[in-house]
Amino acid sequence: MKSDSNTDWQFKLHGIIYESNTPAGKAFDIGLLIAIFTSIIVVMLDSVVSIHAKYGQMFSTLEWVFTALFTVEYILRLVSIRKPFRFVWSPLGIIDLISLLPSYLSIFFIGAQSLLVFRALRLLRVFRIFKLGQFLTEINFLTHALKNSLRKISIFLLTVLTITVILGSIMYLVEKKENGFSNIPESIYWAIVTITTVGYGDISPITPMGKFVASVVMLIGYAIIAVPTGIITHDIALAARQKKELPESCPSCSREGHDSDALFCKFCGSSLYR
Amino acid sequence: MKSDSNTDWQFKLHGIIYESNTPAGKAFDIGLLIAIFTSIIVVMLDSVVSIHAKYGQMFSTLEWVFTALFTVEYILRLVSIRKPFRFVWSPLGIIDLISLLPSYLSIFFIGAQSLLVFRALRLLRVFRIFKLGQFLTEINFLTHALKNSLRKISIFLLTVLTITVILGSIMYLVEKKENGFSNIPESIYWAIVTITTVGYGDISPITPMGKFVASVVMLIGYAIIAVPTGIITHDIALAARQKKELPESCPSCSREGHDSDALFCKFCGSSLYR
Amino acid sequence: MKSDSNTDWQFKLHGIIYESNTPAGKAFDIGLLIAIFTSIIVVMLDSVVSIHAKYGQMFSTLEWVFTALFTVEYILRLVSIRKPFRFVWSPLGIIDLISLLPSYLSIFFIGAQSLLVFRALRLLRVFRIFKLGQFLTEINFLTHALKNSLRKISIFLLTVLTITVILGSIMYLVEKKENGFSNIPESIYWAIVTITTVGYGDISPITPMGKFVASVVMLIGYAIIAVPTGIITHDIALAARQKKELPESCPSCSREGHDSDALFCKFCGSSLYR
Amino acid sequence: MKSDSNTDWQFKLHGIIYESNTPAGKAFDIGLLIAIFTSIIVVMLDSVVSIHAKYGQMFSTLEWVFTALFTVEYILRLVSIRKPFRFVWSPLGIIDLISLLPSYLSIFFIGAQSLLVFRALRLLRVFRIFKLGQFLTEINFLTHALKNSLRKISIFLLTVLTITVILGSIMYLVEKKENGFSNIPESIYWAIVTITTVGYGDISPITPMGKFVASVVMLIGYAIIAVPTGIITHDIALAARQKKELPESCPSCSREGHDSDALFCKFCGSSLYR
Repeated sequence: MKSDSNTDWQFKLHGIIYESNTPAGKAFDIGLLIAIFTSIIVVMLDSVVSIHAKYGQMFSTLEWVFTALFTVEYILRLVSIRKPFRFVWSPLGIIDLISLLPSYLSIFFIGAQSLLVFRALRLLRVFRIFKLGQFLTEINFLTHALKNSLRKISIFLLTVLTITVILGSIMYLVEKKENGFSNIPESIYWAIVTITTVGYGDISPITPMGKFVASVVMLIGYAIIAVPTGIITHDIALAARQKKELPESCPSCSREGHDSDALFCKFCGSSLYR
Repeated sequence: MKSDSNTDWQFKLHGIIYESNTPAGKAFDIGLLIAIFTSIIVVMLDSVVSIHAKYGQMFSTLEWVFTALFTVEYILRLVSIRKPFRFVWSPLGIIDLISLLPSYLSIFFIGAQSLLVFRALRLLRVFRIFKLGQFLTEINFLTHALKNSLRKISIFLLTVLTITVILGSIMYLVEKKENGFSNIPESIYWAIVTITTVGYGDISPITPMGKFVASVVMLIGYAIIAVPTGIITHDIALAARQKKELPESCPSCSREGHDSDALFCKFCGSSLYR
Repeated sequence: MKSDSNTDWQFKLHGIIYESNTPAGKAFDIGLLIAIFTSIIVVMLDSVVSIHAKYGQMFSTLEWVFTALFTVEYILRLVSIRKPFRFVWSPLGIIDLISLLPSYLSIFFIGAQSLLVFRALRLLRVFRIFKLGQFLTEINFLTHALKNSLRKISIFLLTVLTITVILGSIMYLVEKKENGFSNIPESIYWAIVTITTVGYGDISPITPMGKFVASVVMLIGYAIIAVPTGIITHDIALAARQKKELPESCPSCSREGHDSDALFCKFCGSSLYR
Repeated sequence: MKSDSNTDWQFKLHGIIYESNTPAGKAFDIGLLIAIFTSIIVVMLDSVVSIHAKYGQMFSTLEWVFTALFTVEYILRLVSIRKPFRFVWSPLGIIDLISLLPSYLSIFFIGAQSLLVFRALRLLRVFRIFKLGQFLTEINFLTHALKNSLRKISIFLLTVLTITVILGSIMYLVEKKENGFSNIPESIYWAIVTITTVGYGDISPITPMGKFVASVVMLIGYAIIAVPTGIITHDIALAARQKKELPESCPSCSREGHDSDALFCKFCGSSLYR
């Protein structure tokens, strides 16, 4: 039947584009990564004035070639799955569209081409190479540990933000507009630069009182930096312990490959723990 | 009886203003947070010269609206509890008063309005949103761990301060006034900037000898930063272990909700541990 | 007998000056700390040109008062112990002498007074306040943990130094003298500033190649900073476990107060462990 | 037989040059380290213009002396082993050759002498001093722990690099060429400087929007720095536990000296674990 063979063709294409455990899928993934890398390097080099002057024309052609390639890839991604809109609205789908649009927009709007930098977002696909290698266990382990830390880290970041707003406001009072702390948002920016120990030095305290407050901010930042580290270290240790405790194979049917948060065997449904 | 109904009215108001587990209390808390946020953003934007020029009049009106709102809130807080002075002298009460005063002071003293930045302190109420969400366990856990670290962290900060005073004094001798190290407090400020790895670059060593001393300071700071991290990581792990060991429900009366440092059931008084 | 009463007098003085668990000893320690603090603040303020102009004469008098006080204290320390040379050559004794000499030297040599900054070293006595408070357990715990880390941290620092020498040398080749990397020691200084993430910005790469090498240095520094933290965290956890395992009271004579590294009871000599 | 005595001579030389547990080997190692240190310090000082002007001639002579010494050492290393090419292509062999070549190249090419800085790579031999001291256990322990972290750290560095490419590209759009973000590679350099908290300040955001994006980058960097620390801390704890569990002597033949990852006795082949 025609519709059946069509599905079969769809299934094969899906295997190549979305999977990476077949030789064809692997080759597609590697090829795509090389194309993404090259296209980003072209955008990068094109932004350098002296290089643009020499090779601008060539880069422009290359960008259209890559846009064509990625458009074909995008269409293939859509036709190879049964519910294409699921992909369109998925994070990766949106990124793929964003990296395509600037080229087409540049036909109608001058300057839209500069949005090509968003193509850098496609670099996130680089993490697929872990699927190709042996890194899967490690990346799973890390993401699992970080997911656990997320809530605590967000509490931490909110605390830091509150502190910087308060300290930035105080600093705005202490140092006046003349000394670079021209308004409160600027002072908060300074507080963030200081508490994160980045310290550009574009704004820095001038008055003795300001230097005193700044010293307090720095010492607070010095002690505070330890908090997220403590949180993540703890959650990594926790994730490691859980991984250890998790039986690799089901005690009932002895099949393997269970997720790190699985409580029941996904094959026979019996509990993974005694 | 009149006095009774009065107390009842007080009790209801107290439930709305001080608690957040009733729908009315939740709504009040969220409304208050929005008002605080907006008022702080108004103060922030008003400090930007170009924006002040345009919307200064509007901001001035808004600031009075917020002052009126917060004054009403402050009075309601006072009347809804039996011992209002307890609130007045509590940290949150003092912050609330401090955030009100500048507006009223500005009537009598020109420039007092700039003290409005202290309204940023009210941002500390932001941590009430954790009461609304699921973050309570995490925030309890973190504060518990940090409370344990407090003593060790203060020993650490005293050590760092002593080191910076000594190193700053030495640097004042090595680099002379001509090179920016104009006096000892300034040199200590430099030592703090360096040891915390902030490194503004507003003062930096010029002579070879000064650069050598600075390198030593940096390497010391590099090794020292590990200490608070080690302390906090350890105390987080400790707090986690204690939490784990703590029985959630009393083994005698099986009621729950015990504090993390509780040794005996707060309902029946029997030991929580075997 | 005279000699006996003399020893008795010596013993009492020793109790006041060297010990801090008697009321007189506590008072002496607190008084000494206040004197040290004040004298250092006088030296600090005297280094500020504008303050020196106003109060220079007063500060000069105060410095002589403190020098007299500390000289008396130094002599008392010598006479109250039987082997005074032990104290003279101990670290604290050398520091005490160093903080006295500049005042006397300034009579003969102009400018020797600037060496008064070394009086800051006396701040190290500040750690005696822990003897007064409840901090003793924590400071013992921390020094014990850090002593264990010492070897590993020194390996780490040697590695960092080697890396900075190599990277600094390479950077000297990449960026030329014109770009601030005027010689190899200067380039090594830059590498230390960069790898410790201080980043003054007094020297920073200009050429694209230099910026690339600098980026590599930064990322190395970013990953490397984790090593001392890991080491110290581990040794703190280890020290905590050992402390836990250590029986608080001797299993034989049940007396308490054993050091964290004690293996045998200091009162009855039997093993503290089964 | 002549060839046999030759091998014997080779064997003795090998013991002196490559080993360090004999007195002669120790003396050779220490002498070599002193020579390397001195030669590097000569190269360093020679790069300082003012010192070069005075002692340039002397340094030039010294450099030839060291080159001669190291050439002899290199030849001895070759003749004392049976498969000299193995050494030539080993990392240490390549470093030794690289540190010799510049002097000889400088005869033919003017300026080649500046490549002498690569002699700094020989400093890596400094880690041999650990073989002389008691540090061997610690360095083995650390390298073992770090080897375990390698994969996770490389995932982390790839993530950081991807983030900096994306954030740098966005910043290039937000801040224009006029504000120092002259092209995308430059913007990525800025993102690395910022996320690693180095913060030179040679490029820093000027527009409010740019400062906002920069603040986000800093806070991300602040939270992200915790990840490698957590990883390494965990792997150090793991390595410590494994070391503890590892029996020092084989339970069958009781011989010692097994590697930390050994599962079976390397002498009798029986399992090291029950």
